[in-house]
Amino acid sequence: MTTAAPDSAIAAKITNSFAAQSMMASLGASLQSIGPGRCEIHAPILPGFLQQHGFGHAGLTFSLGDSAAGYAALTLMPLDGEVLTAEIKINLLAPARGDILIARGTVIKPGRRLIVVQSEVFVVDAGQQTRIALLQGTMVPVDP
Amino acid sequence: MTTAAPDSAIAAKITNSFAAQSMMASLGASLQSIGPGRCEIHAPILPGFLQQHGFGHAGLTFSLGDSAAGYAALTLMPLDGEVLTAEIKINLLAPARGDILIARGTVIKPGRRLIVVQSEVFVVDAGQQTRIALLQGTMVPVDP
Amino acid sequence: MTTAAPDSAIAAKITNSFAAQSMMASLGASLQSIGPGRCEIHAPILPGFLQQHGFGHAGLTFSLGDSAAGYAALTLMPLDGEVLTAEIKINLLAPARGDILIARGTVIKPGRRLIVVQSEVFVVDAGQQTRIALLQGTMVPVDP
Amino acid sequence: MTTAAPDSAIAAKITNSFAAQSMMASLGASLQSIGPGRCEIHAPILPGFLQQHGFGHAGLTFSLGDSAAGYAALTLMPLDGEVLTAEIKINLLAPARGDILIARGTVIKPGRRLIVVQSEVFVVDAGQQTRIALLQGTMVPVDP
Repeated sequence: MTTAAPDSAIAAKITNSFAAQSMMASLGASLQSIGPGRCEIHAPILPGFLQQHGFGHAGLTFSLGDSAAGYAALTLMPLDGEVLTAEIKINLLAPARGDILIARGTVIKPGRRLIVVQSEVFVVDAGQQTRIALLQGTMVPVDP
Repeated sequence: MTTAAPDSAIAAKITNSFAAQSMMASLGASLQSIGPGRCEIHAPILPGFLQQHGFGHAGLTFSLGDSAAGYAALTLMPLDGEVLTAEIKINLLAPARGDILIARGTVIKPGRRLIVVQSEVFVVDAGQQTRIALLQGTMVPVDP
Repeated sequence: MTTAAPDSAIAAKITNSFAAQSMMASLGASLQSIGPGRCEIHAPILPGFLQQHGFGHAGLTFSLGDSAAGYAALTLMPLDGEVLTAEIKINLLAPARGDILIARGTVIKPGRRLIVVQSEVFVVDAGQQTRIALLQGTMVPVDP
Repeated sequence: MTTAAPDSAIAAKITNSFAAQSMMASLGASLQSIGPGRCEIHAPILPGFLQQHGFGHAGLTFSLGDSAAGYAALTLMPLDGEVLTAEIKINLLAPARGDILIARGTVIKPGRRLIVVQSEVFVVDAGQQTRIALLQGTMVPVDP
């Protein structure tokens, strides 16, 4: 498969898609960088997205990790292509205790039918990064 | 293992824990019912939690499915016990297109060290329920 | 999608495919029954497929569970269709301590691009069945 | 946690455990190397462990990947400790077409209750290595 470089057209498409996800806005998430087969998303841990002990909710961590993986896959798709998460698994490694979450999505194996992806999520606490989650999953291209 | 009936004390504990999760409140989620080894959570698909095509975000579906599974596990824990999600996998079966999401968590295998759980998430659209996600994962007891 | 009944032609195709898997023969596995969207495989726990404590190896349990899920998916494919495992997750629930393993695969959601499947594996010990594993995964159709 | 170096006692323990797994012997697998938090296992693709198209069976790939991950975890355990696979997910990336499989297990996050692991499996075909599977899972310590 050809893996088109995320040139300005692909960057614009992904920026627009991200902006169209109201959930990303509600979480305060921002698209930090993209490149061929990779995507990084940042978000604060907002007071409205905590679990019962006051740390970031697993659903918040998952949402960022899944989105970073999906946009990493999208960087390798044709300009009119889209992807959906078929399935994804998350292992939670440490509590989301800190200020900011950073999700880094990576394409493990591109493909015409399936794109295998991975995502790591880190928390930044007083300037220190700790990996809090590892995700592995499958994105599927959908017809435009 | 003894699986204490979710009597009023356990029900109160779970209600309090759910109320302490600010993310559940932000999603508009409500704890609908609990029983020994099961939990049902409902939530509207709010305008702030959509993906780029206007359907409910996978992160919303995951958050409800994971929470239902976690509280299902908590119904079988001692009164001072807590659980955390160690890992969970979600297969997305259909878009979250509709009004309301229903997540039903079930304990597959209780245990002192690990509790294997499953969760199904349904969307209700014009009165019709469609299963949109299946989750399988592991909860771990944590010290009080 | 149309889900063709596993009539005699499909049954013959699956029987032939199973017979062509040398691993199933090495494990002593037999195709016990198939039906639309389901498949059951039996196998003894042979002395050559144990782990270090003398119970059935997780790789044995996985092999049977994965194959049952794959053939369950194949019952719903066109006669010239094939499927491959894209991904699958196994939760091990109990040791494979006993005489015989029974794997029951089920299609959760058929589809043209992806078939979501589940499999349960049981051990039979002195006539008593215990569920030892639960698998959830994705099969993909491949071109004939 | 202390991560004891896999000194000669740990190496001997792991060598003995591997030798006690009759399934590893049946697959022709050999323990190639271990180090703190890592393990590499090699195996030929034997004629008795193929799928219906004549490539290595997914169950073979899984068995090697899971074992490499388990022994990677065991390198970090006390000398009298043991681990079991609680759950593991495999994404299959390419067919096991070639001569030899190489499985490399790595500990992602050690822990007293849970050890998060990853494993990569490669096929060697005419001297060329191709990654055919990625596994992510959880090992649990068990009482000696």
